[in-house]
Amino acid sequence: MTLHNVRSETPRLGVAMIGSGLMAKSHTMGYRNVEGMYGSSPYRPHFAVLADAKENLARSGAESLGYGRWTADWREAIAAPEVDVVDIVTPNWLHKEIALAAIAAGKHVYCEKPLAVTAADAREMYEAAEAVGVKTLVGFNYLRNPAIAEARRLVGTGALGNIWTLQGRFVLDACSDADVPFAWRFDRKLAGSGALGDLGAHVVALARALAGPISSVCGLSRTFIRTRPAATGAFGYGSDADLGAPRREVENDDATTFLMEFASGASGHIEASRTATGRPYHLSIELIGSKGSLQFVQQDIHTLRLYLDDDAAEHKGYRQIELGPAHGDYGAFWPFPGVPIGLHELKTIEVHEWLSAIADDRCPDGDFKEGWLVSEVLEAVERSVAQRRWVDVEKSS
Amino acid sequence: MTLHNVRSETPRLGVAMIGSGLMAKSHTMGYRNVEGMYGSSPYRPHFAVLADAKENLARSGAESLGYGRWTADWREAIAAPEVDVVDIVTPNWLHKEIALAAIAAGKHVYCEKPLAVTAADAREMYEAAEAVGVKTLVGFNYLRNPAIAEARRLVGTGALGNIWTLQGRFVLDACSDADVPFAWRFDRKLAGSGALGDLGAHVVALARALAGPISSVCGLSRTFIRTRPAATGAFGYGSDADLGAPRREVENDDATTFLMEFASGASGHIEASRTATGRPYHLSIELIGSKGSLQFVQQDIHTLRLYLDDDAAEHKGYRQIELGPAHGDYGAFWPFPGVPIGLHELKTIEVHEWLSAIADDRCPDGDFKEGWLVSEVLEAVERSVAQRRWVDVEKSS
Amino acid sequence: MTLHNVRSETPRLGVAMIGSGLMAKSHTMGYRNVEGMYGSSPYRPHFAVLADAKENLARSGAESLGYGRWTADWREAIAAPEVDVVDIVTPNWLHKEIALAAIAAGKHVYCEKPLAVTAADAREMYEAAEAVGVKTLVGFNYLRNPAIAEARRLVGTGALGNIWTLQGRFVLDACSDADVPFAWRFDRKLAGSGALGDLGAHVVALARALAGPISSVCGLSRTFIRTRPAATGAFGYGSDADLGAPRREVENDDATTFLMEFASGASGHIEASRTATGRPYHLSIELIGSKGSLQFVQQDIHTLRLYLDDDAAEHKGYRQIELGPAHGDYGAFWPFPGVPIGLHELKTIEVHEWLSAIADDRCPDGDFKEGWLVSEVLEAVERSVAQRRWVDVEKSS
Amino acid sequence: MTLHNVRSETPRLGVAMIGSGLMAKSHTMGYRNVEGMYGSSPYRPHFAVLADAKENLARSGAESLGYGRWTADWREAIAAPEVDVVDIVTPNWLHKEIALAAIAAGKHVYCEKPLAVTAADAREMYEAAEAVGVKTLVGFNYLRNPAIAEARRLVGTGALGNIWTLQGRFVLDACSDADVPFAWRFDRKLAGSGALGDLGAHVVALARALAGPISSVCGLSRTFIRTRPAATGAFGYGSDADLGAPRREVENDDATTFLMEFASGASGHIEASRTATGRPYHLSIELIGSKGSLQFVQQDIHTLRLYLDDDAAEHKGYRQIELGPAHGDYGAFWPFPGVPIGLHELKTIEVHEWLSAIADDRCPDGDFKEGWLVSEVLEAVERSVAQRRWVDVEKSS
Repeated sequence: MTLHNVRSETPRLGVAMIGSGLMAKSHTMGYRNVEGMYGSSPYRPHFAVLADAKENLARSGAESLGYGRWTADWREAIAAPEVDVVDIVTPNWLHKEIALAAIAAGKHVYCEKPLAVTAADAREMYEAAEAVGVKTLVGFNYLRNPAIAEARRLVGTGALGNIWTLQGRFVLDACSDADVPFAWRFDRKLAGSGALGDLGAHVVALARALAGPISSVCGLSRTFIRTRPAATGAFGYGSDADLGAPRREVENDDATTFLMEFASGASGHIEASRTATGRPYHLSIELIGSKGSLQFVQQDIHTLRLYLDDDAAEHKGYRQIELGPAHGDYGAFWPFPGVPIGLHELKTIEVHEWLSAIADDRCPDGDFKEGWLVSEVLEAVERSVAQRRWVDVEKSS
Repeated sequence: MTLHNVRSETPRLGVAMIGSGLMAKSHTMGYRNVEGMYGSSPYRPHFAVLADAKENLARSGAESLGYGRWTADWREAIAAPEVDVVDIVTPNWLHKEIALAAIAAGKHVYCEKPLAVTAADAREMYEAAEAVGVKTLVGFNYLRNPAIAEARRLVGTGALGNIWTLQGRFVLDACSDADVPFAWRFDRKLAGSGALGDLGAHVVALARALAGPISSVCGLSRTFIRTRPAATGAFGYGSDADLGAPRREVENDDATTFLMEFASGASGHIEASRTATGRPYHLSIELIGSKGSLQFVQQDIHTLRLYLDDDAAEHKGYRQIELGPAHGDYGAFWPFPGVPIGLHELKTIEVHEWLSAIADDRCPDGDFKEGWLVSEVLEAVERSVAQRRWVDVEKSS
Repeated sequence: MTLHNVRSETPRLGVAMIGSGLMAKSHTMGYRNVEGMYGSSPYRPHFAVLADAKENLARSGAESLGYGRWTADWREAIAAPEVDVVDIVTPNWLHKEIALAAIAAGKHVYCEKPLAVTAADAREMYEAAEAVGVKTLVGFNYLRNPAIAEARRLVGTGALGNIWTLQGRFVLDACSDADVPFAWRFDRKLAGSGALGDLGAHVVALARALAGPISSVCGLSRTFIRTRPAATGAFGYGSDADLGAPRREVENDDATTFLMEFASGASGHIEASRTATGRPYHLSIELIGSKGSLQFVQQDIHTLRLYLDDDAAEHKGYRQIELGPAHGDYGAFWPFPGVPIGLHELKTIEVHEWLSAIADDRCPDGDFKEGWLVSEVLEAVERSVAQRRWVDVEKSS
Repeated sequence: MTLHNVRSETPRLGVAMIGSGLMAKSHTMGYRNVEGMYGSSPYRPHFAVLADAKENLARSGAESLGYGRWTADWREAIAAPEVDVVDIVTPNWLHKEIALAAIAAGKHVYCEKPLAVTAADAREMYEAAEAVGVKTLVGFNYLRNPAIAEARRLVGTGALGNIWTLQGRFVLDACSDADVPFAWRFDRKLAGSGALGDLGAHVVALARALAGPISSVCGLSRTFIRTRPAATGAFGYGSDADLGAPRREVENDDATTFLMEFASGASGHIEASRTATGRPYHLSIELIGSKGSLQFVQQDIHTLRLYLDDDAAEHKGYRQIELGPAHGDYGAFWPFPGVPIGLHELKTIEVHEWLSAIADDRCPDGDFKEGWLVSEVLEAVERSVAQRRWVDVEKSS
């Protein structure tokens, strides 16, 4: 008999997923694909339990995503003894309570962004994890992009000289239609800020990674669509609208743009919008230095554009680096350059960082401390908007 | 106790993977992710056995990809009773023997492209499967692209009018370096043609899907790098070269371009190259009709460009459709438009088509018949190159 | 004898050019080419006299550009009886004195931007011309772009719905090198602001044309290169540096970004930089409305990108309109669409507007009033930078 | 008195323009702008006489373009003693007779492309000029592009290694509409081939400039629109159609694509089409070598894309060189890089080459010999289409 049994020695790690929406799917795919994609993994995930307040979502989510058990009570999921890590993929206002409970139970916590509705909450979550000593991670997927990893490396080598300016945009048009229904994301108490927290948070994390702490900001917010129809489903932008119901007032920003000063002396601006008509999904960064510059557009995920001023005069120009095995985690996906990496695949990179950090007993890149410091920037932007002047970021590093 | 056990009723399907390289990984990811990505699946794969002639590759591949057993003898894998489908991801010259054995054993067969080294072999494989009644599929991933699905739909509606011309390119530079070692792909007996079969096969399948049968061709081939160093590893372009060893003569084309006439009267040309210096991965299609046109570039996978001549005169122009839930299988991945889909994710779409066809007892799109007819086109191109004139395709539909 | 003499009945218009640099060339080309390009012209220019304070530049400029006379004294040029219009293409600080003299002499005045060093000066120039009744024009070339003309038309039709935001950039890297010598443009007294006045002025004019008056602003300025070597030539960025000489302190902004609110309720931001390493010449506009959006990039001058939200769902997307005879003055250049128009050719369009307005006895688009109102915006930005808060624009319409 | 008279010492050159259409305008602009754009010129043109068979066109063309005299008899124009050079901008079938008469009269001849209806005619024109010793030039404008000049320089330095392939396209959609009227361009006797001669001629000239003589070809032609309505005007694609009149049969190709082998061993293909729906004006070149590659797109005239394989591994990628003063004649237009050059401005470069060659008593780049050799390639393509096989080019260098 030449069929040999495979006996994996990869240790198991029990996962509880709190939430059943799009990010539950993306996190689960991430856990599931790390070992196959990378060829090995510090842990093989055990999909222990999926929780959602709605029983039918909990049951169907657990089944299609391959979890062993489901529950409508997230506290049960955290308490399950086979659970080692807790993933929080719920609406923002639930992050804090769930995270604090998981930390108290000694579980590692991987939470979607923005980390919390207020900076004070985010700080409390970070400090609780610090005190207990569990690992934490915030779902800043775009930090995982091989292009961004290469950009950080280039900045670190000094190839760009002094960083002068950074421009960042994350704009989309999911809410340009005035009949997109009112969901929790439009409710200040449940979501905090609007486009700023939902989209701007990603760009702030990228800006900090590339140009360091942001020290002061001055912003402008607009809510272009003042009222929206009630939703017939509870979740996300995609629910159906009840056009007959009375319209409800939107409580946070459709679009925010802010100027910023970095501690280093660099400057820049960031734009976040959920009403950028015609732009379904546009995230971009331009970083300008004294000796070189970088451009990155998320939709062109296979490439990083680089300008080096010391190229020969007649050959000078932005070059389009096709990302490949030479660039960070790209090689886990393809052995030759230039292939687009899917957005779910960025989550695979994120989970790989997460599992590696747990195994190595180190803080992963993009942990709760980073989540908190990003929140401080976002909150400073909100203050500056209210006061119509520049304000300092409370704590920037 | 509120933790409920999940009891999936999705039927199991046993998979044997013959081969352990990049495509073994991509196929396995595809099987693994269908249910989670789509929310449901006709089958839940049982990763039964992985075979590779090299024991160490078989063992490590099976472990990292999650197969229950491994073997160095592919006949054992086919014979295993829990195996329902056989995936062939070996070098080309093995496709025929393995496929015929799997068909004889009554297993469904999913084989990478090109289906066989000769058109006659491909035909034999197709006819054997027809006779037995098993399902077959060829790994023409790019057919699965939501952009291509939308393009086919648009052609079908007549929105482009009469199709006049089609231009297609699949060019990369993996072999531009003269020291890329001699691998099986450079050996005529093992691989058949070079860039033509490896890359051109994809474009021919796309051309047939968009503009119908190709009736005659006239090609030009070049082998720019006549000899290559021996490889120290057996597989793929990526092996290390033994620069001290004597160089071996390359036996097939580095680049082939051919003109073509479609049965419909349309015309066009296709270019395939593995030595397109500076182009790591470029696949593109331009389809021109009497009333409209389409452009697609695989690296810009989030978009399909469409021109409609009956747009208002002052607004006329190519429009960049951001693919979204309205376009084919895209919605399985993201609920909003414009996100790049990864190339492994195209395999998930392919496996979804595969499992659905098996469940529905129908021929999947891109089966062995299509694989054979593509091979007839490729072989006609080779004849035209040898004879320096136009030749008819043996059988085109 | 079948060779017939041509007797043109186009009336003559005498031109005095004050200055001999790049813009003297561009203005002259504009005058010279209007009739041939458009097929007819309200006036045929008589190139009467060119003035430059430096005799050698005056003489060589007059000869190569085809002027009949030259002088080192601009007052003589203005006084010459055959002169009907005076073009001012000198450094900024001279605009006011020359313009007021020309107006006093009853000549029409066509002046490069920014109109003056201060908004008060600009207003004085405007009011003087109003009082005398001569025609005036500011060299906001980009307003002449057929793409911008079409964008203005589209906004006017309401095709974009309510205008929500406008983003504009004019960035270049002419001064990224710390050894670019100190020229008048770096001297506050002679130039006023730096990148803001030189580049931002163009974008402010475009923003006003597309989205109306700007009511309040909040800006951030940076001078990245604090000192520069003395120049060995007097003019422009292109002079040679005297690297041995002591370096001189730069007195105005290398880069300014500002947020803005429009009187209409729209918002946006504008970025101007002369130190945008890697961007030799980048001017772009993105205009987002409730029902549609526009993008324009000056380097892609042959196209205007348009998104209309009421396109059919599956065909929705930015369309790339290739500008053509259907769009404004484009047809004067080419009878079919898509050909890039040169930047000097925009001056031909500008001169055509100028000559037409004089002939029709109407204010040209982009006159001194517009020049003044643009200056008010620029000056408000400077105040906001100094005060680190939002400020109102003194007079916006 | 400080107004000095200008006394130009630039010698005069008398120009006769034979034809009054778009190219008459473009040539005249070229002559008129050389001295101002370049700062000096070997000659100052004297616009002596313009001829057109239609009196009204001759008169109006001469007036708007600034010629001193007009005539309906081109022989008179050639004979005029003040005429030194004759520009031929008529339909193709008239080129030969006019050129031979001008040569016989000892005038220099600048003729639009294609040089003649047949290669034999082109050869006769070339040999006549050789015998008499006058200068000749063919209007291959795109050869004048600073990007192409730089590309030729790069090829010459060996930076790209061995040239392997060249792909070229000149496609437009001016004739995609079946109701574009029948003009001389659709008549074989008057025009020769269709898209091949009109558009392909430009690409063949570029291909020869970049990769040397073409030795053999194999082509495919299509006439997608078999009949067209009669024109109500005589000239160009732009005439109005008489939709009531009987339709006339089109006599030459709407689209031709051909494979080619260069004498050097390189290969490639060229596509020309006047029915490329959705592409108003697309000319592009991709040149692939063993060590580097180039891409050029005429619509992106400000840039040349260059790939060099010996760039550092992690920085490798196509770079976008923004053309500037370092590149050929660009500096005559702008002192900083990245500004689009207009297509009429390419004619200014062409005329500068023309005047310089006359002054220096040398053959200009792109003379009648080149025009003839291009015609030999085009004629070989036509033969290969008829014979459905590869044919040799009669004389390639």
